[in-house]
Amino acid sequence: MSNVSAEAFAPASMGNFGVAFDIVGVAFREPGDVVRVEWQDAPGVTIAAITGDEGRLPRDPSKNSASVAAQSVLRMLGERRGVRLTLEKRLPLESGMGSSAASAVAAAVAVNALAGEPLRRAELLGACLDGEAAVSGYHVDNVGPSLLGGITLITGTEFDEITHLPVPPHLHFALVTPAVSVPTAEARAVLPSHVPLRQHVAQSGAVARMVDALHHGDLEALAEAVESDGIIEPARAHLIPLLYEARAEAKRAGALGLIISGAGPSVCALCDAEATAARVAETLSALYTAAGYGNRALHTQISPQGAKVLRVR
Amino acid sequence: MSNVSAEAFAPASMGNFGVAFDIVGVAFREPGDVVRVEWQDAPGVTIAAITGDEGRLPRDPSKNSASVAAQSVLRMLGERRGVRLTLEKRLPLESGMGSSAASAVAAAVAVNALAGEPLRRAELLGACLDGEAAVSGYHVDNVGPSLLGGITLITGTEFDEITHLPVPPHLHFALVTPAVSVPTAEARAVLPSHVPLRQHVAQSGAVARMVDALHHGDLEALAEAVESDGIIEPARAHLIPLLYEARAEAKRAGALGLIISGAGPSVCALCDAEATAARVAETLSALYTAAGYGNRALHTQISPQGAKVLRVR
Repeated sequence: MSNVSAEAFAPASMGNFGVAFDIVGVAFREPGDVVRVEWQDAPGVTIAAITGDEGRLPRDPSKNSASVAAQSVLRMLGERRGVRLTLEKRLPLESGMGSSAASAVAAAVAVNALAGEPLRRAELLGACLDGEAAVSGYHVDNVGPSLLGGITLITGTEFDEITHLPVPPHLHFALVTPAVSVPTAEARAVLPSHVPLRQHVAQSGAVARMVDALHHGDLEALAEAVESDGIIEPARAHLIPLLYEARAEAKRAGALGLIISGAGPSVCALCDAEATAARVAETLSALYTAAGYGNRALHTQISPQGAKVLRVR
Repeated sequence: MSNVSAEAFAPASMGNFGVAFDIVGVAFREPGDVVRVEWQDAPGVTIAAITGDEGRLPRDPSKNSASVAAQSVLRMLGERRGVRLTLEKRLPLESGMGSSAASAVAAAVAVNALAGEPLRRAELLGACLDGEAAVSGYHVDNVGPSLLGGITLITGTEFDEITHLPVPPHLHFALVTPAVSVPTAEARAVLPSHVPLRQHVAQSGAVARMVDALHHGDLEALAEAVESDGIIEPARAHLIPLLYEARAEAKRAGALGLIISGAGPSVCALCDAEATAARVAETLSALYTAAGYGNRALHTQISPQGAKVLRVR
């Protein structure tokens, strides 16, 4: 079975959950990217249009995470036709919210929907990874949660190496993105190549407390654990404007804790109620504005299901 | 209120739960040390007798973990009398089963019982640590589980930094101690001072899977996770006779996995039934015997409550 066009949404995600660097990812409900695809007779992927990126994303289909993921799904399906792809970019680029992953996931899910959903959700993981790899390396930490939803523990690039951790129902996030650029490559380059054994022990203890807190639904313990990052945050703090001020302000406004979202510059405050998250987002936005940083602020929750098909025709 | 004599038991423990190095400890039901105390008019602690140690433990009260812990409890109580202490040593020394910790815990619990239990269990932690520190450094990883029971996540030396993780009811252990000496100091000295960041990430991912598996009661996932230790085990493997052969044999006999107990030389196989644990203990004992290593073998479970008062008079 085959359709004429299909449209899919894939949400923003946070690739590092504080201390759980490179192993735990979180899917947000909002914002997210939307990809629309329709068949074309010529093989391969044509990028018909990209909106919302201010012209910054590559239009070359071999260099855009959405088109690379779409191409990968076509290959999996043995499809001789190609697709024309439109990307509605709603996520800020290089913000630490999984922008390239969301585009790749939305494209893979859209092409699968266009073809009548022959592949299960999990089977799209490899294609999404191909898209992500085209722009920022072979990381599952954003692609995993954006595709599968929830809080994902990722210990490899295979589907059975992704586990869902419990999602506390009252966990809300305030997400604020100051208008500075932190390219993922630079955020990786500032990390130490080695860590002292003692620090590894402390960090893995905090990871254990974090997983335990998720199972108990203990948001205070969760926030304390994810903030206990003695390795990644200190190395990246100078790339994130006003990080420590933002943490202090967020807590004064009622947040339980604050971490860098992904590789930054977005910061993510953990809250236990929607009203608190809204207030914290406003407070942080005002902090950045007062310091001369343009910014985007929002509050959201975890998306339990991740990407979704919006329309098939 | 005060008694004439008191006797307490403190169990063996495993200070490192495989990949959860230095952060997760486990209390076994058996074996354990027994300490008996009675008042003496002179202040301080007199060691009346030690049995079962083949004369290897120090009789100087300032150098024995049991008497140091006893002294520390007397000090907390502001007690002017002293105690005469008898230690029935049932744990092998330097075996990786928390021998010095068990003596310290049994002594602290016995002195508290002698005095009519004025202190709560948790309040004895510091005294037990004093005892442990007198012989092997300020580590909570054996003292914590031996005193408090269960599976303990330890992220500091304060009581509120110790969390109990869920104990899967069908988890059984086969414990085999080959007759070679692995002093804790040597086992520490062979560890790397730094670990590659990539290895830290993999290791903390395995720690996360382990805690998640404990919450799900998934013994197979637990065994796979605790075995996924790319840092500590490779550094210590040469100190543990036949480690990899023991792992292979244990699995052939039905075990789910095998790790070094504490700093070794004991090995600990994880099993999902008592009969399997018994068979695995026999198999491993035969393996070591055939290779010319005297050994002790047993099978046990987790002790939910840890140390206990045996008798008060």
